[in-house]
Amino acid sequence: MKLVKNKAGRFVPEEVNGEKQIPFQGVGKYKSSGKIASPPVRSCIDFPSDGNKIVKNLKDALKKSGLKDGMTISTHHHLRNGDILTNFLFDTIHSMGIKNIRWFPSASFPCHNHLIKYLMDGTIHHIEGSMNGPLGKFTSEGKMKGMGILRSHGGRYQAIQDGEVHIDIAVISAPASDPFGNANGVQGKSACGGLGFALADSEYANKVIVVTDNLVPFPCVPWQIQGNNVDYVVRVDSLGNPAKIVSGTTEITKSPDRLLIAEYVAKFMDEAGIVKDGFSYQAGAGGINLAVIHFLKKIMIVKGIKARFIRGGSTKYLVEMLQEGLIDYILDGQTFDLDGVYSMRDNPNHVMTTPFTSYNYHSKGNFASIVDAAILGATEVDLKFNANVVSHSDGYLLHGIGGWQNCLFAKCSILTIPSFRDRIPVIVDEVTTLCGPGELIDVVVTETGIAINPKRKDLLHSLKNSLLPIRSLEEIQKEVYEICGGAPEKPKLNKKKVVAVVKWVDGTVLDSIYQVTR
Amino acid sequence: MKLVKNKAGRFVPEEVNGEKQIPFQGVGKYKSSGKIASPPVRSCIDFPSDGNKIVKNLKDALKKSGLKDGMTISTHHHLRNGDILTNFLFDTIHSMGIKNIRWFPSASFPCHNHLIKYLMDGTIHHIEGSMNGPLGKFTSEGKMKGMGILRSHGGRYQAIQDGEVHIDIAVISAPASDPFGNANGVQGKSACGGLGFALADSEYANKVIVVTDNLVPFPCVPWQIQGNNVDYVVRVDSLGNPAKIVSGTTEITKSPDRLLIAEYVAKFMDEAGIVKDGFSYQAGAGGINLAVIHFLKKIMIVKGIKARFIRGGSTKYLVEMLQEGLIDYILDGQTFDLDGVYSMRDNPNHVMTTPFTSYNYHSKGNFASIVDAAILGATEVDLKFNANVVSHSDGYLLHGIGGWQNCLFAKCSILTIPSFRDRIPVIVDEVTTLCGPGELIDVVVTETGIAINPKRKDLLHSLKNSLLPIRSLEEIQKEVYEICGGAPEKPKLNKKKVVAVVKWVDGTVLDSIYQVTR
Repeated sequence: MKLVKNKAGRFVPEEVNGEKQIPFQGVGKYKSSGKIASPPVRSCIDFPSDGNKIVKNLKDALKKSGLKDGMTISTHHHLRNGDILTNFLFDTIHSMGIKNIRWFPSASFPCHNHLIKYLMDGTIHHIEGSMNGPLGKFTSEGKMKGMGILRSHGGRYQAIQDGEVHIDIAVISAPASDPFGNANGVQGKSACGGLGFALADSEYANKVIVVTDNLVPFPCVPWQIQGNNVDYVVRVDSLGNPAKIVSGTTEITKSPDRLLIAEYVAKFMDEAGIVKDGFSYQAGAGGINLAVIHFLKKIMIVKGIKARFIRGGSTKYLVEMLQEGLIDYILDGQTFDLDGVYSMRDNPNHVMTTPFTSYNYHSKGNFASIVDAAILGATEVDLKFNANVVSHSDGYLLHGIGGWQNCLFAKCSILTIPSFRDRIPVIVDEVTTLCGPGELIDVVVTETGIAINPKRKDLLHSLKNSLLPIRSLEEIQKEVYEICGGAPEKPKLNKKKVVAVVKWVDGTVLDSIYQVTR
Repeated sequence: MKLVKNKAGRFVPEEVNGEKQIPFQGVGKYKSSGKIASPPVRSCIDFPSDGNKIVKNLKDALKKSGLKDGMTISTHHHLRNGDILTNFLFDTIHSMGIKNIRWFPSASFPCHNHLIKYLMDGTIHHIEGSMNGPLGKFTSEGKMKGMGILRSHGGRYQAIQDGEVHIDIAVISAPASDPFGNANGVQGKSACGGLGFALADSEYANKVIVVTDNLVPFPCVPWQIQGNNVDYVVRVDSLGNPAKIVSGTTEITKSPDRLLIAEYVAKFMDEAGIVKDGFSYQAGAGGINLAVIHFLKKIMIVKGIKARFIRGGSTKYLVEMLQEGLIDYILDGQTFDLDGVYSMRDNPNHVMTTPFTSYNYHSKGNFASIVDAAILGATEVDLKFNANVVSHSDGYLLHGIGGWQNCLFAKCSILTIPSFRDRIPVIVDEVTTLCGPGELIDVVVTETGIAINPKRKDLLHSLKNSLLPIRSLEEIQKEVYEICGGAPEKPKLNKKKVVAVVKWVDGTVLDSIYQVTR
């Protein structure tokens, strides 16, 4: 396999799974001269005039969709770790004797451990999409037949829209659907919130199958997925485990170090002048992020400040702020708990967003760069502010990119990281995997100090008299190395075997992930 | 100009404005083997990262959009006869010295009389879109440089989607917009309701300009038009005359004959078994249609029947039914009065629809064929149930097709027509212009009798013991001819000069409209 050095100085394959790639050319440097994907013209002649697209079962729908060896099948991850349907889908595909599927999920979760046997027996050729947990480990060990491709949420939309990935059959889990295929995720026992991650699939896939455990009479309103894009509707008893779909694990961190990080972030944002009437920020559902919301809310109440919108990952914490009038809108990309689901269902100011509106880089702008501040995690940061969010310093691929790369385009991107994890320093000399170029990362907040990217002279100026522990990354690293006994051990990697690549938001290849050999 | 006879027996040009055409091949007979239009891949690199797309004025936006001679400019008609913006747009284009524009409105109104001078001086080459009133008359007189093309709302979406019409610049009047271009029609002094007719334009045009008289901070919610598709935003003082945008002329007919027609329709639907729990129908905003709603509502209340949805053309009459719990949903394609606007804004069960959801024939099904009954007008019907909705029997083109062709796909399509107008019989031997093939028209209701299409044996059977005046079209015609003194005078047409064509929902050419020579 031939590797070339890209503009970030990382070595990346020229070809991935037989398809030629464009190496990363720098932030804002690459523009496609192509045209967007162009599905065939359909006709109402081929669809039932009474709008009833229900077929017997999933196998029947797959047959009618022309399922064949080597096809690309997409799924979405709104059912998160409660997803039963995707496992059932591949049980069905396996039972039909089909091989070499490219599985194109928006993300996979530990519950998809079930699919490792299908990766082993050739049913699934490779995965393009986030591989959280066991599937990531499997890939890192070099066991997957093809090469993995990791994309951000926006990058996934871009790849589908631009025709880089042609989906043969999209299978969309729908907590509510009508027989025409209009579907949403806010009604029914498997309610999960918005279905935005399935939007591109519904628009561009050749065949679209909606699977529901909650069939409602036409019209299913809201139609987050439009039946006009759907071929078949399948009824099943259950899409998943509701307790794990909306996991209820979205709780504020109790760790004193992490609480301190959150408090630093809120104070930093305040002192930097970000927290003012009409401001906006992006909040995730991790423990530190939820704590940031808590501290920001306190500041907002004391100062009488109202935010225009918060981008979520919505949780009860955001919903409360909306209800209390502290924010005008929640712009919600993913709904993490039932409070979020009910709020999206009932409150017109809790608005579903999609990777198209929020993150697609190949669009006439998107929401991500409009947001005043985005607060994000990372597994590693290096001294040039480059960051990693998919692998650990032992080399294992264990997380997806999510909207992380896309959110870096916020007016102020803030990484919140404990300075070490399990006694392993997190600020390193060079990140194991490059996911975010340092030029896009403005601030790194740890419990031992806040580092501002030297490029952001404006922030350095605003904070120059701050009592916050503003330090350089080098200083923080030195202190942590002293605590942990030096730099983390180098991962044991087979640099001849790339197991997966990380794409940038424009479709170019940013970095390679190598086989772990220990 | 070479004319060929199509499958409806009508003569149509092989070429229109230099582009080759496909003659109508029969209902449900033609399938395109093409692919949908494929705009170039855009990049966020080319758009302001703060999301502010506001430019100085409309002229500046047109310049930045690269306006040139011969381009296609689209507008929508949600401002109806109150539209000021479109006139201002062409004043601006004229002032820039640009010539030979193809104007592609979703419809034009009498207020656009102002544009005749630009049709005369070569600024506008021709119009593709409904030409209501003076522009239709102008066209009929053979004065337009190019040939007009009339499409249904669904056909317009289809033509854009399929790449038959490439829009260079779409100009979208937005009663509310944010600087990013997210826009809606339910807020502000020029509120008009949904902006569905501009959807395809926003998706497929090369450049999209949103013009607003009500700029709101990001995010403008709901975003009926998505800013991700928008290039420039322009502020103006006023888009139009609010009194004429939502005209308030939507009143129930007071004519005894027309009230009788409406009563017949309601009774017919009841006796045919259509009016039952969960049923649906399409209601327009004409005087007879509103009266039908009135009579149907009476039946529903007496029998305790609830409809699942009504497709509008929404008015206060539908809104009342929604509020009174007589219908679950209004699926609204066009909002005709302020009650409708406020209801769409505030009631989540009053849902905006678009020509994509409702009418696009080149889709995986659409809503039109799911509707139990559609009640429509017509200018003429012939003895084979063929109908005309665009021209009068004097040959003049005076109306657009609207959603009329699309609605014919309802399970029961009902034409409501007075049997004569101004002493001119409406049931003729052959329609002046064929807009709807008779095989799709199920029932014709006049004040002198109800004619059921002989193809609909089921309806004939259901109504066989009815006390309603079920008669043949021939009987009704005969009676009316006796009253009016015979068949209407033949129009004086120059059959050598086609001034416009009528497209079918699949993009084929259904009929020609000829120059009137009197």
